[in-house]
Amino acid sequence: MTLILSNDDIRKSLKVKECLNVMEETYRELASSRAVNRPTSQSYLPPSLPQSTYNFKSVDGGVGKYGVFALRVTSTVDQEQHINNTVRLEKLPLAKGKFVGLVQLFSAETGELLAIMPDGFIQQTRVAVTSALGVKALARENSKVLALIGSGGQAHAHFRFLTAVRPIKHVKIFSPNPEHRNAFAKEMERETEIPTNPMESAERAVTDCDIVCTTTNSSRPVVKADWLKPGMHYNAIREFEMDEAGLAKSDVVAIHTQFGGIQHYQPPGIVVDMPGVRREKSRDWSRYPEICDLIAGKAPGRTNDKQITFFLNNVGTGVQFAAMGYCAYRAAKENGLGHEIPTDWFLQDIKP
Amino acid sequence: MTLILSNDDIRKSLKVKECLNVMEETYRELASSRAVNRPTSQSYLPPSLPQSTYNFKSVDGGVGKYGVFALRVTSTVDQEQHINNTVRLEKLPLAKGKFVGLVQLFSAETGELLAIMPDGFIQQTRVAVTSALGVKALARENSKVLALIGSGGQAHAHFRFLTAVRPIKHVKIFSPNPEHRNAFAKEMERETEIPTNPMESAERAVTDCDIVCTTTNSSRPVVKADWLKPGMHYNAIREFEMDEAGLAKSDVVAIHTQFGGIQHYQPPGIVVDMPGVRREKSRDWSRYPEICDLIAGKAPGRTNDKQITFFLNNVGTGVQFAAMGYCAYRAAKENGLGHEIPTDWFLQDIKP
Repeated sequence: MTLILSNDDIRKSLKVKECLNVMEETYRELASSRAVNRPTSQSYLPPSLPQSTYNFKSVDGGVGKYGVFALRVTSTVDQEQHINNTVRLEKLPLAKGKFVGLVQLFSAETGELLAIMPDGFIQQTRVAVTSALGVKALARENSKVLALIGSGGQAHAHFRFLTAVRPIKHVKIFSPNPEHRNAFAKEMERETEIPTNPMESAERAVTDCDIVCTTTNSSRPVVKADWLKPGMHYNAIREFEMDEAGLAKSDVVAIHTQFGGIQHYQPPGIVVDMPGVRREKSRDWSRYPEICDLIAGKAPGRTNDKQITFFLNNVGTGVQFAAMGYCAYRAAKENGLGHEIPTDWFLQDIKP
Repeated sequence: MTLILSNDDIRKSLKVKECLNVMEETYRELASSRAVNRPTSQSYLPPSLPQSTYNFKSVDGGVGKYGVFALRVTSTVDQEQHINNTVRLEKLPLAKGKFVGLVQLFSAETGELLAIMPDGFIQQTRVAVTSALGVKALARENSKVLALIGSGGQAHAHFRFLTAVRPIKHVKIFSPNPEHRNAFAKEMERETEIPTNPMESAERAVTDCDIVCTTTNSSRPVVKADWLKPGMHYNAIREFEMDEAGLAKSDVVAIHTQFGGIQHYQPPGIVVDMPGVRREKSRDWSRYPEICDLIAGKAPGRTNDKQITFFLNNVGTGVQFAAMGYCAYRAAKENGLGHEIPTDWFLQDIKP
C-alpha cells in the first residue's frame, strides 16, 4: 500500500529522538558516500495574475542505510507585493485557499512509491533537527539557558528539538509582536514543562544565555556581535541573521552544507528575471566544515568552554527530506495513520 | 479530484489529432517564451544488488497556454548485465515484477496536483508525436511509403502518428527478428487498415520509400548513407542510428532540442562512475535548428522535392510530458476514466 499522510498524521507520529538519530545517521551516510543530494531547481512559467509567477521547485536525495529516496516539490503561484516601501514575495493560497508542497518517498530497493505527504511539518522538522545536531556538535554540554528569537513554525520546531539535545532549564523568547511571543512562550511551557520567559528585546533574551537561536525571516542581522559572550553557541537558519562582525568573533564556525545553490529555469528567450525569481547572494562559506564532517569526526568541534561557536543551517538538502520522510512513514505505519492507496496504481508493465 | 490513471486509461482515451495539435502549440509556446524546461537529472544510490545502482531520474516543464506543469520521474534499480561480450544496462522489475515511472500533472494556475499517471504510454507517445511534427515540417507533402525499422513500443507509436500527418498508403517494416516484424506488421495493418509488408532487410525496407523512421535501441548506424535518395525524409530517435555520412548527405537537418544534457549526481566523494551511470557522448548539434524554430517559422524547412531531410528526435523534454499529460488528463476526465482521489489530500494550510 502507498500511504497518503497529512501534516496532522505526521505531527502526531514523529518522535523527537528517532528524528535526531535518523538524521545523524543520514549525515554519517553522506560522509561515507552512501547518500546523495541533487541541488534545488526552480522552473518558472509566465504569470496568470499580475506581478506573479508560477514556481515549481524540486529537490531530491536518498539514504542508502534506510533504502529510501525522497523528492520534495512545491507548486506555487508567487506574487510580488509592495507593502510599506518594501517588496515581499507572497505565495498565494490559490489551491482552494491552501498550498501545494509534497514529499514523495520511494523505496531505493524496489523503486516503489511508499508515501506522499505534505512538506509543511516535515520542512519545519528537518531544519530544526539539523540545528539540534549543530547544537549537539558545538554547544557546551552544560548549556542550560536557550534564547529563541522568533515565534513561528520554525521557532516551535527549534524549541522542541534544541531542548532535546541539551539539559535546557529555561527558554527566553523574543519576537517583535508581544502577543505572539507571550502566546508562544505559554504554549511551549505547557507542552514541554520547561519554564519560558517572553522578553522585551532580542538583546535581553540573549543576555546570559548559553545558546542563541534565531528562527526569523530576516535578511538583516538579528543578533549583534557585542551580545555574543565566551562559551555561547549561536544557531542561525538564515545567512544574514548574523552580522559579519559576529561571524569574525566566532571561534568555531560550521555550516549545514557546501552543496547547492538553486538552479533557476525560465522560459527560453527570457533574459530579465521574471517577478518572483530570487537569486540570493551568499557569503563565501567554502572554508567552513559541514555538519556531516563534524558528526563523522572529520572536522573539529568545540575544544573548550570559552569558545564562541556558530552554526549556519544554510540551505535545505534532499537527504533531509529522505530522513524525515522515512521517520514519518515508519511512524505512521506503526500507528495506522494515513490513507492507503494500492501501490499497484503507481506501477506499470512498460519498462521506463 | 486528483485523477490516478493507468496506461490502459491513457491508451483508450488519447486522440491522435489532439496530441499533434497540443504538442505543436506547445512548441509555439516554447518559441514565444511561454513554456519552460528543466533538463533531466539522475541521482544515484549505491547498490543493494551486485553491479546495480538505484537511479532516480526526473525532468520537468510547463506550458503557459494550457496552464499545466508536469514532472516526470522514474525510480528504478539498474543492473549491468554481461551478455555475449557486451554490457547491457537492464532496469530490474523489482516492484512486484513491475516498474515505476510516473508523470505528475500540476495546475500552473492554482498549484494543485491534477493527476498522476504512469509514464510508459505517454513516453512512447511524446516521442512519436514529436517525430510526426518533424515529418510534418520536413517530409514531402505527397509522401506515400513509410519504412519503419523496429517493432517495439516506439515502432507502434510512430506507425500511428507518422501515418496521421502524411497520406501514407504503404508501410514497409523491418526488425531483425522475423516473428516480431511479421506480428507487428499484421497487428498494425489490422488496427490502421494501412497495408504493411514485413521486409527481410533494412535496406530493402528503405528502398523506394518516402520516409524512413528508425525506432531502435541501437547505438550503431541502422541506415546507411547510400540508401538515402533525393526527396527522402529520415527520422531518428537516437543520435547514432544515423551515420556521419548520412548526416553529411542531408540537405536540411533539424533536431528536437539543443536543451539538456543529463545532470548526474552521485554520492559525494565518489569519483569513479557507479555501475549504471551512462554519460552519453553527443555530436555537436549546435548549428542545427530546433523543431520549435521550424514550427514557429524561425528556421527554413524543406524548399524542394529533391532535398534529403533529416530530423533527429534527440532528447526528451519536460514540456513534452506536460503536453501529453494534459491530453491524457483531459481525455480521461471526459471519458470518466481513472481513480479519483480527493485533491484535499495533497493540500495543506502550512505555507511551503
